[in-house]
Amino acid sequence: MTGTFPTDLSRDLIATAHALADAARPETLRHFRQAIATDDKTGDGAGFDPVTEADRAAERAMREVLARRRPHDAILGEEYGETPGTSGLTWVLDPIDGTRAYICGAPTWGVLISVRDADGPVFGLIDQPYVDERFEGGFGVARLTGPRGEAPLRCRTARPLAEATVMTTFPEVGTPEDRAGFEAVSQAARLTRYGMDCYAYALVALGQVDLVIEAGLNSYDICAPIAVIEAAGGVVTDWEGGPAHEGGRVLAAANPQIHAEALELLRG
Amino acid sequence: MTGTFPTDLSRDLIATAHALADAARPETLRHFRQAIATDDKTGDGAGFDPVTEADRAAERAMREVLARRRPHDAILGEEYGETPGTSGLTWVLDPIDGTRAYICGAPTWGVLISVRDADGPVFGLIDQPYVDERFEGGFGVARLTGPRGEAPLRCRTARPLAEATVMTTFPEVGTPEDRAGFEAVSQAARLTRYGMDCYAYALVALGQVDLVIEAGLNSYDICAPIAVIEAAGGVVTDWEGGPAHEGGRVLAAANPQIHAEALELLRG
Repeated sequence: MTGTFPTDLSRDLIATAHALADAARPETLRHFRQAIATDDKTGDGAGFDPVTEADRAAERAMREVLARRRPHDAILGEEYGETPGTSGLTWVLDPIDGTRAYICGAPTWGVLISVRDADGPVFGLIDQPYVDERFEGGFGVARLTGPRGEAPLRCRTARPLAEATVMTTFPEVGTPEDRAGFEAVSQAARLTRYGMDCYAYALVALGQVDLVIEAGLNSYDICAPIAVIEAAGGVVTDWEGGPAHEGGRVLAAANPQIHAEALELLRG
Repeated sequence: MTGTFPTDLSRDLIATAHALADAARPETLRHFRQAIATDDKTGDGAGFDPVTEADRAAERAMREVLARRRPHDAILGEEYGETPGTSGLTWVLDPIDGTRAYICGAPTWGVLISVRDADGPVFGLIDQPYVDERFEGGFGVARLTGPRGEAPLRCRTARPLAEATVMTTFPEVGTPEDRAGFEAVSQAARLTRYGMDCYAYALVALGQVDLVIEAGLNSYDICAPIAVIEAAGGVVTDWEGGPAHEGGRVLAAANPQIHAEALELLRG
């Protein structure tokens, strides 16, 4: 996919993605671990889907950067929806992925930024402002810049599922069928961990985790992780093996072998 | 309890605790996110209780500091067991609490260091080397030193359980009865989160989380969190309301009101 992008365009998209992450950081950090009002998006008292002023302010800050730098690109943002464009490129933004983690003070939320064309994401960032970590992938780049310096991102090589680590955010996963699919894989794995939100995908790209399995995702939850994991050598699809960038049920794997092993169990 | 410790002694204990954390850091960081062999403590293939050379090296480094600075104090460490002493004080050490998180590359493990007398812990530290965060409590101190500077630790004020956040590490919690107890509280709370290990207790002390409920703990898992949370104004007991510093079933609460509300549900 990189081949279809002229170097000056790909450089500008990378620089813009970093400018977006830089613009979001002060907005998310200003409210992190402070008393902050949370609204419940479900609005029905049955669930709890919090959104805060930090989510909204961070997305506004990113949209201001895009209006200046890339006015012809489209935008899909979690908080402010779709803005049309004419360039054929869309910026897909989740200003705080893991708002529940954010309002608990845990350092496992992230700012998700990616740019996609008609075929899917071509570059993405997972930014964790508090820890000062930025995972990026696409256009030949696969890198973590963090508090202990820079490191290449490289998913780990194949190991049997019985020796693998699998992550998801909630034990419920989604519908009862979603949960059953996840548990079929989880029960065959060595170690299952919960609660990491987008950070779980970063750990796949870092070569620390073999599988992340989730359901009920939106496009803005998964486009940046796809770019980062694919750049690090991993595979991300839906539970049928098709494209995952529109969201839904997602299987992210460190390598094709464990992807195939998990996919077989998810298909039942 | 502070009153029974002369100032020069309490100062030396605080300085020693920091020296222990400083000694453990290079040992845990050296192996973090590297390929590292994991042994399974259960040894039966049924569970998976990993221990690594990082756990062992970090405890050895701390024991060397104690041999030099506090040779008459006893030691209880997760990896090397009990070493008797004559001072009436015991250092309780968990070189890596959350080894499962550690081997996944997640930044939510911690080094737990505390010193106790016959009545329980008098000072404790929760150290997260990768994020560069140190939570400490006891002898009039309740403080986070982290990448964004220093902040006082103060648990949050009372709110109804229906508006509260509760954490535990594994959805199974422990035995089926342990799980049922946890779920009675979880179902009455607004938000439940998993997977944070000792970091969950730090979040209570930070005023971000209302309750942590766990079972099957060892003394070295909970002594440091008790010291930190009590110094920040919270309450930590077992599920009967008694002392928790020997481990077992633990209820950590941000304030006496929500402690009482959760305890009533745990007692069924």
